[in-house]
Amino acid sequence: MNFFNGTATINSDNQLEIGGLSVPELAARFGTPLYVMDEMLIRQNCRLWKQATANYGTVAYAAKAFCTKAMCRLIHQEGLALDVVSGGELATALAADFPAQLIYFNGNNKSAAELRLAIQAQVGRLVVDNFLELEMIEQIAARLKQQVDILLRICPGIEADTHEYIQTGQLDSKFGFTLANGQAMAAVEAALSKRHLRLRGLQYHIGSQIFALDSHAAAAKITVSFMATIYKKFGLTLAELDVGGGLGISYLPDDNPAGVSDLVQTVVHTIRTHCATSGLAFPTLVFEPGRSIVGPAGWAVYRVGARKEIPGVRTYIAVDGGLFDNPRPALYGSQYFAFVANKANDPAEETVTIAGKCCESGDILIKDIALPRLEPGDIIAMPSTGAYQYTMASNYNRFCRPAVVFVNNGEAYTVVKRETIEDLLRNDLIPRAWDKEHLLRAAR
Amino acid sequence: MNFFNGTATINSDNQLEIGGLSVPELAARFGTPLYVMDEMLIRQNCRLWKQATANYGTVAYAAKAFCTKAMCRLIHQEGLALDVVSGGELATALAADFPAQLIYFNGNNKSAAELRLAIQAQVGRLVVDNFLELEMIEQIAARLKQQVDILLRICPGIEADTHEYIQTGQLDSKFGFTLANGQAMAAVEAALSKRHLRLRGLQYHIGSQIFALDSHAAAAKITVSFMATIYKKFGLTLAELDVGGGLGISYLPDDNPAGVSDLVQTVVHTIRTHCATSGLAFPTLVFEPGRSIVGPAGWAVYRVGARKEIPGVRTYIAVDGGLFDNPRPALYGSQYFAFVANKANDPAEETVTIAGKCCESGDILIKDIALPRLEPGDIIAMPSTGAYQYTMASNYNRFCRPAVVFVNNGEAYTVVKRETIEDLLRNDLIPRAWDKEHLLRAAR
Repeated sequence: MNFFNGTATINSDNQLEIGGLSVPELAARFGTPLYVMDEMLIRQNCRLWKQATANYGTVAYAAKAFCTKAMCRLIHQEGLALDVVSGGELATALAADFPAQLIYFNGNNKSAAELRLAIQAQVGRLVVDNFLELEMIEQIAARLKQQVDILLRICPGIEADTHEYIQTGQLDSKFGFTLANGQAMAAVEAALSKRHLRLRGLQYHIGSQIFALDSHAAAAKITVSFMATIYKKFGLTLAELDVGGGLGISYLPDDNPAGVSDLVQTVVHTIRTHCATSGLAFPTLVFEPGRSIVGPAGWAVYRVGARKEIPGVRTYIAVDGGLFDNPRPALYGSQYFAFVANKANDPAEETVTIAGKCCESGDILIKDIALPRLEPGDIIAMPSTGAYQYTMASNYNRFCRPAVVFVNNGEAYTVVKRETIEDLLRNDLIPRAWDKEHLLRAAR
Repeated sequence: MNFFNGTATINSDNQLEIGGLSVPELAARFGTPLYVMDEMLIRQNCRLWKQATANYGTVAYAAKAFCTKAMCRLIHQEGLALDVVSGGELATALAADFPAQLIYFNGNNKSAAELRLAIQAQVGRLVVDNFLELEMIEQIAARLKQQVDILLRICPGIEADTHEYIQTGQLDSKFGFTLANGQAMAAVEAALSKRHLRLRGLQYHIGSQIFALDSHAAAAKITVSFMATIYKKFGLTLAELDVGGGLGISYLPDDNPAGVSDLVQTVVHTIRTHCATSGLAFPTLVFEPGRSIVGPAGWAVYRVGARKEIPGVRTYIAVDGGLFDNPRPALYGSQYFAFVANKANDPAEETVTIAGKCCESGDILIKDIALPRLEPGDIIAMPSTGAYQYTMASNYNRFCRPAVVFVNNGEAYTVVKRETIEDLLRNDLIPRAWDKEHLLRAAR
């Protein structure tokens, strides 16, 4: 079973245990729904990426997968760089004392305020998505009398083998300068003409949760060929190539994604071969893994509530989370697996559908899974929920977002406090003009 | 064009104007993205519902469509009751001094804490979804020595003509006691046996954003037939029938939803006819509109940023909102319309795709819409965004959620303040065990 690569195990009390702590006890201590994350597995995944890429370049953790102050701190402790996509992610990193020089700033429509924040903070690389941004960066940098190191995001025209929402490198994409129609070359020319920009290299990203490696190889090949054209045209050797992320992880027991070193070796081999053919020096590579670092470390923990049996149709088991804390099943049709944390080794006895508590039929977390007989109060733990779950959570139906707890070696650390009603109400205002008292006071 | 039923109009400066205020000026004053809501249209829709149902019962606004303190206050000012689906919505209503007696509490998996809060607050009706809840309410009510007025949510087995995620009354549903297999009758028996529960009536809900009225009629007919069976079996006449919500609204210019009075008359006529046939007294009806009250009053206001033209494929126009502030296009494939608020009467010149700024290809707000030529800084206003947009917004990519502004008669009132970076960071913690200083202190 591929959900036990970290510290997760089943203890002698028949309970799921992570970081040396019983999940039912964590549920009792911190409440549910709860996101439990295996800190050692996150660190282990960071080290795996670092080792696999040691001779070729840098790993920049893609913060959009899971971005909190603690996560940024951990990433720095592990010696990785950081890939952010918004002013909010950048501010989170800076609040965790993450060195700006190790930050890559991505995004398809950065605002002037975000660019100013990034340039003033002197982030390591601004990854430029479009011509408007190129102009804006030059203007801001000129005003601030700074030089800005940039990569150009190119769109290689590769359709990766994944959900269309998270394919990003196909021709019909909102991201980057398109190779096929000459836009990317025009962007290189434009970048070279700007006095305050230093063009360090290129970036591409073909998508997320990709199992097959051939689209990674195809994108690398096309991009090196473009680098060769740039060399021919300008005599310019680009020293850096950011090859994005996209490595898939196991959500279901039978999933079989490629390994980190498989992906790295495929990309390195392709780039090395085609650089050699073209007489280009091998560039410094940047990898941007997010999901593959943090996804497998997360366990979403829910408490079982109501049961609804419709004989011959379906048995619904409702839990105390759902669409608000994990929109991925509704959004992408994502499939998940689950364990009963307090009956972890019990045999499956029935096929049930795990429903959330949002007032919406689309709020189904898992359709038809074989599990031990479930009773109210049982604890469900869904693996592989460390990425794109907390980050995508909402307050739909005015539910509070769960706490996030890192567990490690028998200790549990709250890294995000559970939201409270006070949090929900903090920004709500009632117009004073509606206040009769206020009107009467004004009339006096 | 069916987006100008409220105060929205195009002024002599060629600008979209709502509540007597220019939308481009609102964008400049409050920033973007911004949710602008036409307060008079919300009130007008409340009154429309109240008038249409005046002789038949009550209107309970479904807070899940849009729930803030100001909205709850407005609903009370307009004399409507309130339908909530969580402890968070209930707490919001109570914080706005909404009378608990006028609150209906729905939901498929209410927690013990939520039920306790509702019973202690003495909400008007608890709408019981399942057998576990029936037991829990009886226990809590017994402990608190209270009598609790309940409705039973039944599942009539009707497939409404809408997106499967927001169909709620079909046989294969997580909601309510199923009629077809005798569960609903067993629930009536169970409710009658509880000493602290007063069974006031039934509730059903067949879905949301429904255009055709025949499924409403079918559900009403089935339910009255069930009420007749209850009468025959127990000699009990149920005095209340909550018929849910579900009225569709126009998202596109050619949409043609039924009107409020069409729906009310269809339901009333069906219930009256079948009650007469069965010798039942006409019950007090409860309607639960949400979207039809608040949806048409909302305008999502964005600023145009980058343009990406891929000749022969598509032109992308990026705005400063997206998936994080409106997940409905990605979640349901919802289609929206848009105006260029600063060029409101200009003729369409090009077909573009409105992309959001989330780092995800699925973040497309509108695919292929004909609009005037767009330049960076132009203001896009999307109508019919008052329901299920703010409530479903997230901080995906660590973006701050927009402010919500009510406009009315030349005044603008902030009813939800724009989130800040401080809001995003408020609950983030870095484990003290990681802090070297802390470790050194501990070692001294």
